[in-house]
Amino acid sequence: MRYSRSFIPTLKHAPADVETPSHQLLLRAGLIRPLARGLYDLLPLGLRVQRKIERIVRDELDRVGALEVLLPVVQPAELWRESQRWDIYTGEGLLATLCDRSGREFCLGPTHEEVVTDLVRRDVRSYRDVPLVLYQIQTKFRDEIRPRFGLLRTREFTMMDAYSFDRSFEDAQAAYQRMYDAYVRIFRRCGLACRPVEASSGAMGGKLSHEFQVLAATGENAIASCDDCGYAANVERAAIGERSPRQSPHTTDDPSAAPIEMVATPGMHSIAEVTAFLQVPARSLIKTLIYETDDRPLAVLVRGDHAVNEEKLALASGAAWARLADAERVQHLIGAPVGFAGPIGLRDLMLVADRALREPAAFVTGANIADTHYRNVRLDRDVHIDHWADVRNAENGDACPHCATGTLLITRGIEVGHVFFLGERYSGPMHATILDETGQEVRLQMGCYGIGIGRTLAAAIEQHHDAAGIRWPMAIAPFQVEVLSLSQVDPAVVETAEHLYDALLGAGLEVLYDDRDERAGVKRNDADLIGIPYQVVVGGRSLQSGQVELKRRRDGSVERLELAAAPAQVAARVQADLAEP
Amino acid sequence: MRYSRSFIPTLKHAPADVETPSHQLLLRAGLIRPLARGLYDLLPLGLRVQRKIERIVRDELDRVGALEVLLPVVQPAELWRESQRWDIYTGEGLLATLCDRSGREFCLGPTHEEVVTDLVRRDVRSYRDVPLVLYQIQTKFRDEIRPRFGLLRTREFTMMDAYSFDRSFEDAQAAYQRMYDAYVRIFRRCGLACRPVEASSGAMGGKLSHEFQVLAATGENAIASCDDCGYAANVERAAIGERSPRQSPHTTDDPSAAPIEMVATPGMHSIAEVTAFLQVPARSLIKTLIYETDDRPLAVLVRGDHAVNEEKLALASGAAWARLADAERVQHLIGAPVGFAGPIGLRDLMLVADRALREPAAFVTGANIADTHYRNVRLDRDVHIDHWADVRNAENGDACPHCATGTLLITRGIEVGHVFFLGERYSGPMHATILDETGQEVRLQMGCYGIGIGRTLAAAIEQHHDAAGIRWPMAIAPFQVEVLSLSQVDPAVVETAEHLYDALLGAGLEVLYDDRDERAGVKRNDADLIGIPYQVVVGGRSLQSGQVELKRRRDGSVERLELAAAPAQVAARVQADLAEP
Repeated sequence: MRYSRSFIPTLKHAPADVETPSHQLLLRAGLIRPLARGLYDLLPLGLRVQRKIERIVRDELDRVGALEVLLPVVQPAELWRESQRWDIYTGEGLLATLCDRSGREFCLGPTHEEVVTDLVRRDVRSYRDVPLVLYQIQTKFRDEIRPRFGLLRTREFTMMDAYSFDRSFEDAQAAYQRMYDAYVRIFRRCGLACRPVEASSGAMGGKLSHEFQVLAATGENAIASCDDCGYAANVERAAIGERSPRQSPHTTDDPSAAPIEMVATPGMHSIAEVTAFLQVPARSLIKTLIYETDDRPLAVLVRGDHAVNEEKLALASGAAWARLADAERVQHLIGAPVGFAGPIGLRDLMLVADRALREPAAFVTGANIADTHYRNVRLDRDVHIDHWADVRNAENGDACPHCATGTLLITRGIEVGHVFFLGERYSGPMHATILDETGQEVRLQMGCYGIGIGRTLAAAIEQHHDAAGIRWPMAIAPFQVEVLSLSQVDPAVVETAEHLYDALLGAGLEVLYDDRDERAGVKRNDADLIGIPYQVVVGGRSLQSGQVELKRRRDGSVERLELAAAPAQVAARVQADLAEP
Repeated sequence: MRYSRSFIPTLKHAPADVETPSHQLLLRAGLIRPLARGLYDLLPLGLRVQRKIERIVRDELDRVGALEVLLPVVQPAELWRESQRWDIYTGEGLLATLCDRSGREFCLGPTHEEVVTDLVRRDVRSYRDVPLVLYQIQTKFRDEIRPRFGLLRTREFTMMDAYSFDRSFEDAQAAYQRMYDAYVRIFRRCGLACRPVEASSGAMGGKLSHEFQVLAATGENAIASCDDCGYAANVERAAIGERSPRQSPHTTDDPSAAPIEMVATPGMHSIAEVTAFLQVPARSLIKTLIYETDDRPLAVLVRGDHAVNEEKLALASGAAWARLADAERVQHLIGAPVGFAGPIGLRDLMLVADRALREPAAFVTGANIADTHYRNVRLDRDVHIDHWADVRNAENGDACPHCATGTLLITRGIEVGHVFFLGERYSGPMHATILDETGQEVRLQMGCYGIGIGRTLAAAIEQHHDAAGIRWPMAIAPFQVEVLSLSQVDPAVVETAEHLYDALLGAGLEVLYDDRDERAGVKRNDADLIGIPYQVVVGGRSLQSGQVELKRRRDGSVERLELAAAPAQVAARVQADLAEP
């Protein structure tokens, strides 16, 4: 492709309000343009990358026997009512809805469980028709509250979504594993460092799920992973091992000593206020929080520097859900305002304490009296805990729950893929069944699987860039080689560049040829910005000694190649990079 | 692909209310399933065909330098207000509209003129940036009043839409011609007999446009084409030559004779009623119709067997538009009810007559009196015609407007593509300009271009099918070869079929292998229904003589191939078919 005949509108600077590296570089390198909030035009260079990612996805899914289909973007509301998602999704405002000319309700599909289950229940009837995995790569829409970070969180996006149908739990688990393995290969082939982590399943409703996280310092998600055994989970989901954490909360020299002491803490509601006032670290405080559950209210104790995990709390207390009680309710239950709750003197509330508090240590706690705290509270001496459990988010340094030796490290990632086991979540209410060998009706066991194509593109940039621009992994680079002619005036330079362009194309490479009438500096800067893996630079000086410059964008290394041998050598390097992962 | 692991749910019969051949066969061969009115699931076999068509489209567009982009489906209303299309399109009810969570209005794009013009006006600034053609292959939505005929008229559909930007009218015409030529190659490569015809441009607003019509007896559109010079146009657009039509309207032996005679025609409003009552053919009547225009009302005369063309009428009378007056207005203007208008005694109405009436012949006309007609009216003797013009739709046998000798024939077609010259229709109101060499601001001259991908798929079936099923052209067939094993019990048959499947795959062919545990008859019927171009049939009898059967779906011809030579011979036939057009 000749640059002069392409459409790659690069920018010197990104708009001031654009902060994320991938968002900046997508705009600056001319891959996207904004149309409206959370809606982007994908320009030729961006689309080329997207298509390459799609091709890898298709290739790996076809390999595991998944079949590609294309389902409508616009879906009838009736199906969503059947699965009981209509009210939930419209209530959250995530669903874009519309009425057709006859007044029937439709939505723009954020996912396609209903549509695909409807298809399968009509046309799949026998045990001989499964296992079946259907997938599509298609436009989705979610009316996000805060679309941001460019392609990382848009409202309209291209997504691969797949759905598996099996006759038994065991078969469904096997399908899940095949898709999981395909995902590992997909992201590896894309040239991305990606980690599958155990994930909470949110509104999708399932028991088993993994997120695929591309590791990047700028990632939105916190991942807890073991430095020893490889266990990894979303911090919201990560279990914490029972071994003591490395950092002990001890605050007194002799933990058995001092008696409880009441201190006045006027108007100090927050951990920060209390710790600053009492001159103790947050980890020496106990946070006592009052929760409502579907069963009964309860008080949960966690260390001052820890965060309660509501999902774990609900699980530990045998409830379906748990949420913070409001101020009025707290006042009613403990007789004191929010901020002054403590474990001592609480009546009629079940006490759940986080296991990190199971230490012979003295803590500061609220006193259940306005403007008052206690010092030197020891849970083993002064309080009866009804239930010890893991009820908080994992932190750096926590013990791994899976191995005896490992420690959890918190890293950041960008979720690019998701695999869910759904079971009968949709096949149940929508009556999707097959007949087994004996003529018995069996409910289909489902799984669903998604990969954000645009997100993967953006995540690749987050992981692979430097101050000058993008550094594309070879497998998803928009072109493999860029030829730069440093002069459009010097006939020897132009002729050589034209010749090299033809020769590299002839070698089967994907080549961008910067033939614009621009200064050498502009071309070099744009080449670094766009980030094609190899730059073949044709300039006056090296050309006089019959050579061209080969720059590898990944590490900035530069070497000189003899003109005649250059095409074959560049082709060999591209092949080597493609074979790499 | 093994049939047993694919998802090709064939049906013995299409639902009773499905009438069009392509709709029936798309359902029966398992290519599509309905989701809701005008919304279809595209199943694996259907998607394979769609992808092949898309690949040919991309290939030819890339060849003429068009650049692929991907623009959002969801578009902000503001842009449509800027181009002044919002009110028109929402008024017609064709636009699906929605509000986001903040109450801003959006639509689902039926086309993308506004979005692409908005992109270009921001990022294309210089004469050096054009010519530019941007295209996409993407999901569109039109809320059709009557979606029908399966993929021929849906509400959601996959479309290639392209937009050209040029600095001058001449350059824009050249871009138009390049796209036109690319279209000719695209449909030829798809294996379709397709005719570009001059077209009226409807609501898109442009001066020059062509439709690409796939010829098929079941087509919705009537095309007038010259049997001599190749001129072709939509009947609504086709001009009619000035030579006399072949069939003369004469009704009397001596056209100069009889005087006007009044006849009672009680309650006879329609041509059919009057001709039956008076025992004359429709072509001996003059239809007198009263039209409103933006200028003034007028009466138009056409032969009883002809149809007024409102676009031609408006053009001929110098008006922007013309539409039939309602009954009350007719009564007011002529003093008689609808059905009894005639040219004699009309005052204050301009009389426009179709040129086909310029004959020394006697006609029956209305008398402008209720329940009354005249016989023996001669326009050259009895009436003053203000304006003779071509104001009707072309008919079989009309003279060609372009050559001296040809005659127009009416054939039927399916519109699969469209090219429009837009000029400044969008660049004007949306202020899309570039600077020329002298720093002068110049408005971009635009063209727009569409191909219905799903329509092309369906049109291919309309043109290529027989009673047993589809007969795919090789270039867009979902697979090139199908292997049928007539027994899944006989180990020799199974083994040979498996071996052939592998060998044909090894020869680089796209192979469907029917390995299902089904009767031979079922497999043969399904193979004819699905319509893969070649069937390699492995059965007990021929196998005993070391042979397999090769059936060519296109003509039903069958030959025997020696087993060992079969793969190479089949590959050679596929290659020959691919090279054909």
